[in-house]
Amino acid sequence: MNQIKRLYLNEVATRDGFQNEAAFIDTDDKIALIDALSACGYAKIEVTSFTSPKAIPALRDAEAVMHGIKRSPGVVYTVLVPNVRGAERALSCRVDEVNLVMSVSESHNRANLRMTREQSFAQLADVIDAVRGTGVAINVSLSTAMGCPMEGDVPIPTVLDWMARFAQRGVQGVTLCDTTGMAYPNQVRELCERAREQFDALDLTLHFHNTRGMALANTLAALDAGIVRFDASLGGLGGCPYAPGATGNVCTEELVHMLELDGYDTGVNLAAVLDAAARLPALIGHDVPSQILKAGRRTDLHPLPQSVRGMPSQRAFS
Amino acid sequence: MNQIKRLYLNEVATRDGFQNEAAFIDTDDKIALIDALSACGYAKIEVTSFTSPKAIPALRDAEAVMHGIKRSPGVVYTVLVPNVRGAERALSCRVDEVNLVMSVSESHNRANLRMTREQSFAQLADVIDAVRGTGVAINVSLSTAMGCPMEGDVPIPTVLDWMARFAQRGVQGVTLCDTTGMAYPNQVRELCERAREQFDALDLTLHFHNTRGMALANTLAALDAGIVRFDASLGGLGGCPYAPGATGNVCTEELVHMLELDGYDTGVNLAAVLDAAARLPALIGHDVPSQILKAGRRTDLHPLPQSVRGMPSQRAFS
Repeated sequence: MNQIKRLYLNEVATRDGFQNEAAFIDTDDKIALIDALSACGYAKIEVTSFTSPKAIPALRDAEAVMHGIKRSPGVVYTVLVPNVRGAERALSCRVDEVNLVMSVSESHNRANLRMTREQSFAQLADVIDAVRGTGVAINVSLSTAMGCPMEGDVPIPTVLDWMARFAQRGVQGVTLCDTTGMAYPNQVRELCERAREQFDALDLTLHFHNTRGMALANTLAALDAGIVRFDASLGGLGGCPYAPGATGNVCTEELVHMLELDGYDTGVNLAAVLDAAARLPALIGHDVPSQILKAGRRTDLHPLPQSVRGMPSQRAFS
Repeated sequence: MNQIKRLYLNEVATRDGFQNEAAFIDTDDKIALIDALSACGYAKIEVTSFTSPKAIPALRDAEAVMHGIKRSPGVVYTVLVPNVRGAERALSCRVDEVNLVMSVSESHNRANLRMTREQSFAQLADVIDAVRGTGVAINVSLSTAMGCPMEGDVPIPTVLDWMARFAQRGVQGVTLCDTTGMAYPNQVRELCERAREQFDALDLTLHFHNTRGMALANTLAALDAGIVRFDASLGGLGGCPYAPGATGNVCTEELVHMLELDGYDTGVNLAAVLDAAARLPALIGHDVPSQILKAGRRTDLHPLPQSVRGMPSQRAFS
């Protein structure tokens, strides 16, 4: 008998997805969507970002959103925090966790955060000092952990070194991010195995993008290596400025659909997630990459076409 | 040291893809594309379909295409053949292989081919009798082998039974087709293991669709089970009438890109395939699902954006 393995999903659409949207999404709509997500069974929801309203105007309503949502007792509500000012704002909203971000490649950190990695680390170390002792958990998302769009491969020891520096500062979790969809399965397997080996006390999360179609394949490789925590984005929202037109973050409903079929317990109710994802196009004003929204679940059967009796055919769909 | 494993790819875009196109693609354009594909290193190319021109007008130029292409010595040129008339036409064009198609689920066979499975089998048995002894190889593509959009799950013994009936007739190869993208990794692994165990003399090929985003994940599962032959479609062309708007066949360039990164020898030159795929939108008059065409290969690096020096940012792409 197979043992059902419990996985833990973190929904990032309202932060990693919405930060990219050109049109402002009404605060009430954000709150309504997050409340719907709170009922879906996620382990964690990345609600918003306490960055400067000038830097990310799409998320300028972070306080209002955090105060407006109804919190579900089983869910960890996390927010992105770039600096001490952001941490103070987040703490005043009683978040469960703060998520810090920096890149493990120098060029991407400069392009994304306009700082050197050392400057970022110093800034995030101040955040950690500000948050330590408050009872709020700290996670660090390491961008470009599986490749940098400017530098190419990032050596695994570089990734492990940055993990070590944050582990020494006492963070509870690290997320390895495939920021621009450069990860491939054998690389993921090796990185995850080495990270788990070296940091068995850290909560390790994998964050995939489907930029080159490999997000679900990479998920299988991470599962092989014993990973149980994954970020995902409703509808596949989110993306990367270096791949215009390409799909974004791994799509929550595609991930849950596959994991459920493969016998995992994701905690997440797929039907409820699909209902939430179906709201997105109206909310953001454009289509989303999600395939499952278009094709339905594998178990959504179709009637025999009416035309079968009338029309001859040798279409031979294989 | 890892041993480099050789895989064998069959390009199906000019048959499985083009049969779905509403606008007729000029015969000369088809020939030029197939000639380009012949230089890419595929093991096999499914050139066209010798079906009734009324049933699939898009491929009504099957003879002209077969006669017009320049054949590369290393490539097997295969064609779809629905009946003895089609087989005669194909044999007159000196094809290397004929590919026969039927569904392993009754409802899909009726919807797709307007026959019962037994009627299809009888018709294909006649084709096998007509081709046997000519030196032309015979492959059978079994549709809905991982699920039927009308019936749901197809029991593995049903798939194995149809394989057995064709194996007894002396075909050289069987392709297991995930016609509407219902396959999931653990199912693929089990089906492939059992099929290989029972039919070790048959050339076994896997044919995935990316309808629900799982094509590359399913490929990993098939590789785990020892499969070395895969169908793929340039640009991700092709698709299924039950999932409007969803992506189609597994995309050749996405498949090759992942397999190469994972250390397999696909025989296929990715740069040449990308050049060929880049021609498709002009040829067919619309965009293709391929992510790699949009995002580039993982090794296609980007310069540091000019804006880094000027503009502050806390966009924090993870």
